Amino acid sequence: MDKVTFANENLMIQIQENVRGQDVFVIQPSCSPVSDGIIELLIMLDALRSASAGRITAVIPYFPYVRSDKKDQPRISIAARLMADLIQSAGAERVITMDLHAPQIQGFFSIPVDQLTARNLLCSHLERRDLSNSVLVASDVGEVKDVGAFSRILGLQMAIIDKRRTGNDDKAKATHLVGNVEGKEAIIVDDEIATAGTLCEAADFLRQHGAISVRACATHPILCGPAMERIQESSIEEVIVTDTVPVPRAKRIPKVNVLSVASIFGEAIRRIHHSESVGAMFDN
Amino acid sequence: MDKVTFANENLMIQIQENVRGQDVFVIQPSCSPVSDGIIELLIMLDALRSASAGRITAVIPYFPYVRSDKKDQPRISIAARLMADLIQSAGAERVITMDLHAPQIQGFFSIPVDQLTARNLLCSHLERRDLSNSVLVASDVGEVKDVGAFSRILGLQMAIIDKRRTGNDDKAKATHLVGNVEGKEAIIVDDEIATAGTLCEAADFLRQHGAISVRACATHPILCGPAMERIQESSIEEVIVTDTVPVPRAKRIPKVNVLSVASIFGEAIRRIHHSESVGAMFDN
Amino acid sequence: MDKVTFANENLMIQIQENVRGQDVFVIQPSCSPVSDGIIELLIMLDALRSASAGRITAVIPYFPYVRSDKKDQPRISIAARLMADLIQSAGAERVITMDLHAPQIQGFFSIPVDQLTARNLLCSHLERRDLSNSVLVASDVGEVKDVGAFSRILGLQMAIIDKRRTGNDDKAKATHLVGNVEGKEAIIVDDEIATAGTLCEAADFLRQHGAISVRACATHPILCGPAMERIQESSIEEVIVTDTVPVPRAKRIPKVNVLSVASIFGEAIRRIHHSESVGAMFDN
Amino acid sequence: MDKVTFANENLMIQIQENVRGQDVFVIQPSCSPVSDGIIELLIMLDALRSASAGRITAVIPYFPYVRSDKKDQPRISIAARLMADLIQSAGAERVITMDLHAPQIQGFFSIPVDQLTARNLLCSHLERRDLSNSVLVASDVGEVKDVGAFSRILGLQMAIIDKRRTGNDDKAKATHLVGNVEGKEAIIVDDEIATAGTLCEAADFLRQHGAISVRACATHPILCGPAMERIQESSIEEVIVTDTVPVPRAKRIPKVNVLSVASIFGEAIRRIHHSESVGAMFDN
Amino acid sequence: MDKVTFANENLMIQIQENVRGQDVFVIQPSCSPVSDGIIELLIMLDALRSASAGRITAVIPYFPYVRSDKKDQPRISIAARLMADLIQSAGAERVITMDLHAPQIQGFFSIPVDQLTARNLLCSHLERRDLSNSVLVASDVGEVKDVGAFSRILGLQMAIIDKRRTGNDDKAKATHLVGNVEGKEAIIVDDEIATAGTLCEAADFLRQHGAISVRACATHPILCGPAMERIQESSIEEVIVTDTVPVPRAKRIPKVNVLSVASIFGEAIRRIHHSESVGAMFDN
Amino acid sequence: MDKVTFANENLMIQIQENVRGQDVFVIQPSCSPVSDGIIELLIMLDALRSASAGRITAVIPYFPYVRSDKKDQPRISIAARLMADLIQSAGAERVITMDLHAPQIQGFFSIPVDQLTARNLLCSHLERRDLSNSVLVASDVGEVKDVGAFSRILGLQMAIIDKRRTGNDDKAKATHLVGNVEGKEAIIVDDEIATAGTLCEAADFLRQHGAISVRACATHPILCGPAMERIQESSIEEVIVTDTVPVPRAKRIPKVNVLSVASIFGEAIRRIHHSESVGAMFDN
Repeated sequence: MDKVTFANENLMIQIQENVRGQDVFVIQPSCSPVSDGIIELLIMLDALRSASAGRITAVIPYFPYVRSDKKDQPRISIAARLMADLIQSAGAERVITMDLHAPQIQGFFSIPVDQLTARNLLCSHLERRDLSNSVLVASDVGEVKDVGAFSRILGLQMAIIDKRRTGNDDKAKATHLVGNVEGKEAIIVDDEIATAGTLCEAADFLRQHGAISVRACATHPILCGPAMERIQESSIEEVIVTDTVPVPRAKRIPKVNVLSVASIFGEAIRRIHHSESVGAMFDN
Repeated sequence: MDKVTFANENLMIQIQENVRGQDVFVIQPSCSPVSDGIIELLIMLDALRSASAGRITAVIPYFPYVRSDKKDQPRISIAARLMADLIQSAGAERVITMDLHAPQIQGFFSIPVDQLTARNLLCSHLERRDLSNSVLVASDVGEVKDVGAFSRILGLQMAIIDKRRTGNDDKAKATHLVGNVEGKEAIIVDDEIATAGTLCEAADFLRQHGAISVRACATHPILCGPAMERIQESSIEEVIVTDTVPVPRAKRIPKVNVLSVASIFGEAIRRIHHSESVGAMFDN
Repeated sequence: MDKVTFANENLMIQIQENVRGQDVFVIQPSCSPVSDGIIELLIMLDALRSASAGRITAVIPYFPYVRSDKKDQPRISIAARLMADLIQSAGAERVITMDLHAPQIQGFFSIPVDQLTARNLLCSHLERRDLSNSVLVASDVGEVKDVGAFSRILGLQMAIIDKRRTGNDDKAKATHLVGNVEGKEAIIVDDEIATAGTLCEAADFLRQHGAISVRACATHPILCGPAMERIQESSIEEVIVTDTVPVPRAKRIPKVNVLSVASIFGEAIRRIHHSESVGAMFDN
Repeated sequence: MDKVTFANENLMIQIQENVRGQDVFVIQPSCSPVSDGIIELLIMLDALRSASAGRITAVIPYFPYVRSDKKDQPRISIAARLMADLIQSAGAERVITMDLHAPQIQGFFSIPVDQLTARNLLCSHLERRDLSNSVLVASDVGEVKDVGAFSRILGLQMAIIDKRRTGNDDKAKATHLVGNVEGKEAIIVDDEIATAGTLCEAADFLRQHGAISVRACATHPILCGPAMERIQESSIEEVIVTDTVPVPRAKRIPKVNVLSVASIFGEAIRRIHHSESVGAMFDN
Repeated sequence: MDKVTFANENLMIQIQENVRGQDVFVIQPSCSPVSDGIIELLIMLDALRSASAGRITAVIPYFPYVRSDKKDQPRISIAARLMADLIQSAGAERVITMDLHAPQIQGFFSIPVDQLTARNLLCSHLERRDLSNSVLVASDVGEVKDVGAFSRILGLQMAIIDKRRTGNDDKAKATHLVGNVEGKEAIIVDDEIATAGTLCEAADFLRQHGAISVRACATHPILCGPAMERIQESSIEEVIVTDTVPVPRAKRIPKVNVLSVASIFGEAIRRIHHSESVGAMFDN
Repeated sequence: MDKVTFANENLMIQIQENVRGQDVFVIQPSCSPVSDGIIELLIMLDALRSASAGRITAVIPYFPYVRSDKKDQPRISIAARLMADLIQSAGAERVITMDLHAPQIQGFFSIPVDQLTARNLLCSHLERRDLSNSVLVASDVGEVKDVGAFSRILGLQMAIIDKRRTGNDDKAKATHLVGNVEGKEAIIVDDEIATAGTLCEAADFLRQHGAISVRACATHPILCGPAMERIQESSIEEVIVTDTVPVPRAKRIPKVNVLSVASIFGEAIRRIHHSESVGAMFDN
């Protein structure tokens, strides 16, 4: 692909080789600047379609607007569904992605979607240490289901931080701990870390409730805004993420461990190209 | 509507009055026999469309196949998305439904959906009793988010039953309680009660962990298979449901309290017909 | 395929083998319970699509709602068209079926349809006997075209039973015979036999008009409701049908001859898979 | 509408008045030159759509390619379905037409279709004479259903001309008469008269079988090729048609009676515009 | 293909060989009668689709209604877009065409389009003569862009004829010459020649402005209406066209030179069938 | 509308008032940051659709990617067509825009488009001065058609700058002037001014060819990159543009005259809302 950004900010993307009849996989990270990345993906898909590619698969490790997946306020867009529509409208015939915020999001597409997971990768990393005194923690009721999956793989117990709005405050704060972390090593599990605000607040809360250490693990390292400062200054010992979103060198501080999902995506692409089962990659 | 079921089980539905240009609302419960109900809805929608109805709204209090909302095993259908496609394909231009298993399901549609909720209705009923010693319980990690919403309205704490597969058993069993019910009045919250297996098992588990009483509340009373026997024989004191699914007289035993959602649906239909806000019905 | 019917009557269908890129043929009979069969077909098609099957062909020997093919009353659905829409909406890319009630129904689809016929099979069976004194009979003006096709193959003359409403009776009755069956062996030809009411009434009427024997032949043996009692007690000597609809052992009484269409469907599937002509199967 | 045909045969159609938001009915006859008429209709529909018409109804008294409604030979187009697709693709939101060759053709559309009928008009005209010695005749097995409808309205018996291919002849010839016309006044009923070949052959055949007179009635007067000479020279006494297809003065010979359908279409348009029932026009 | 035109002007097209799974290219010239040609193309495409062709490419050397490509008056159709819609609606999956009036027209399609050009072919022919004293002329401001492309290939200067409406005349007339042709050999370049009115008027105008000779070159020879007489009687020395539109023998007068595009289309079809680059055919 | 941009750059747009059944016009400028503007428009459209707006019109004064309107190189996207698809996919039912780069772009939409023009506004401004010694100039062959329209309104002659690639230089340079500007006041006409590179080069070129002054006029003031410096330092006396793209105070230097199109858009919106003719706004 050859990409030019004109002075008027318009992109011009030219595919450099003949792709007629080819089985094409377009890999597009969803990182800053986010809107440019989306438009770039859509233009690439359209260029491939009009260049008569045989089959076009969009490989989107972190799906854009993945948390705008429900209409929890009146008169808003379910933007993740809109993104699915746009990607299909631009010509994608198949999508590969990883760890969607909710598994239902797969139903937003009318083309086949292969949803991969970094769960086994993250659990393997966690298991390098002795977990016998560990407890898994959901930093919000919305994440409990995900934590449940980890707890089944690792055979650990879990705790949940319950957040409420108090007084006139518009923002919910951690008020109760459901379960027990006293004297335990806590591991907070989430699907993504954005500004790390919730995460660091949770870590403090857990320490107040007696946790002897706090680690965090998540698939998608958005790490935007004040995230790095917060993590650096927090009581969190280790943050384990993957590289579904590029983590620049400046963010690769000692506390942050970045596991590569390259071989998971590579294997999925190989299987799809050869019509082998992708589901079989995640069987136990 | 005039409905004939022929000896070959085929339905013939004739709309008895001119509907040209009318704003039509088709109300279809999703109860046994389920498949017949779906086909009946689709044929009614198609008949209305070909009869030139002005606008066709499908009112589906309990959405069929609502729990088949994700691809948690390889090579299965996300049947709730399929139902959404079929209903649109048959001619619905708008859908009104209540308390979907996951809020993301709204994103399965490309037509406007008004999702109503019975949450306030159920909470009001619960509040008739003194709740100061009560705790809300999720019978599964998948239900915690829903329980969280109730806990915010009622200002109660919560507990979660964690289920695991043990030994060679294929079925998960309640193994841990996250949180505390000792000496408390437990209220199990769920979106639907089908065979009541999970529910009654949870009730026993809570009593073993010291709960002094167990009640249950859910929007959708499927109450199929052995549900009524199980409820009758269980330690559950009260089951509070709505009538999104018809509850026949035989199932209206003293333990079961059925609240009517008729006025909620009626008000939503009135507002939609007059282009008034539906979101405003659920504002606090 | 692995099929589970839950207590709430919802189906869960899982394809047991990897079908990525495969040329898949789904064979679905349309027999009682009819609605369940339709929903099952739609879910299977959707599961195959989301499992990335290469091409999905729905093989539907007897097409559901095939007689709801016109709008002969105001404000009804042309349900056969609706079924075509649903089947396409669920993911079928091609349909194979047999002897549609009207050949125009093929035009309800926007995907390729291969319509097979059992006509040659039925005629071959009829020709085992001496037909020199036989006459083909249409039991209704709506069936004459079909009977004409048989009469051209077999070189026989035909007669038509004309039905009218008399007096205040809502149901049409056989009132006239167009043509002559006096002293002849009559063979009633139809596309399907449902309750056998029309058929048995026709047989009596033909005997009254001098037919020395009556046989009947039809492609689709619905045989629902009182069909078997009526046939057993009627003056009909033989009923020749195929197995496009399963005929259980209890219905396989001596009078009923069931011819297998398995090899016709098998050959059509073989030809489609290998891109050979299906039309050539029925050339003369 | 302003229509220019350029020297290169391209049409340019301009709507002369503002139609934004208007309820527009486009009336297009389907007469020679047929292809020009179809293209003209499609361009008018598209012009109306892009001119923001409120609702666009195509009024097509005789539907083009109406007899290409089935795939009775391999590898042909069901051109009537194609026409339905094109008309919808060009912007029609509703269609009004009359006496389709087969009622199933209505199922080719996914927009509402109002199918009007000239049957009552034609029957009223026939009833002006004493019909007590008349018999209705289908000139082909394919027309029997239509004849049956007339026979029920008029209370008359019917007969069918059975055509077969004989010897090496490629064309089917009338070989048998099913029913009896001896000493009767025969009325041949069809949906359209094109070259009048079948019709005039049928008239001779009926006279040979003893009919004392032959009349013919049909909704659509295509009257193309040698039709007028054949009718003029035939033994047919009267041909009753409507003006769904324009009948120029030269074809209005004494034998040909043209009934106007203008008021039927006018009333249907009035009712559709005012959202009144169209079905009620044809109730008995 | 076997094509029958019935007396009612309806076409019946039957594909004579099995095309299941084949890569089919349908070549359709757009010549008089134009509407018949369009309908014929649409029916062929639909027949191929329903005959299960593997991939259907419409090869349309001169695209119909190509100059109706904008809405330069209110309430008209952009008929070239409509044609694109109809061709896709009838089943084309790909289009090959040549020298569209405006390159934007390619954007009217949502299927891949290969736009070939005869520019190199025409330039090679022009270069057979000494062009050192030649100037390229656009007969209208609308054609300047095209002329610019020729001027870049041939390294020639250009001039433009500017047309204005004068007085009450409804038709624009050549009033100014932008640039200079005095003492030069003028070559008028256009994409098509229809009635040759503009062309011959331009030639006279150029001679009046001192051009010592005038030649013309265009891809598409519509040559309709008075075109041949005008060209014959004009001062134009030579008219160079291709055979994208068939040029019958009667129009092949000495002044008219017809270059064949057969090998360009042949090569494009070969490359598409073998998934080779078509763009590479026109690289410099 | 309430718009929040989260730290992860995701937008959340909430419509603040009930819009059910309302006729909504969304006005979206296409200025820097361009991609954010496009995504914002798409999310607003989707939010309005799901909020049941009665009719949604996207008002886009300067259409994004308007110059990516053709496939002038292999394997690129016609991005303007893609934008049209995305805008429709997100829910727009109608578009209002101004002075598209080519009029054919209107054909990229399948919804009604009202294309307004600032031509009369710009000409009125030009006519404030004495134009008797003026000549209109196209800075490239691609702009001649547009210049022709101005020349017809103003009754002026025109000239064209012909650009060629010379030597090994990849960029085309102005090499010839077609027509004459000697001793004239030149007015360069274009549809947009982006970096002003072409424009300023053209001004110099015209001065070298004897123009006594140079002015420029264009509808869309992108004015990106080095545009302002170039204009400031150039020999251009005046640049006349509109405010289809916001012109910030810093760019409103004395040389730049910004005319407001607000009343043109306002009037068009008024007319569309009241179903009055928009074409009538631009009649002469």
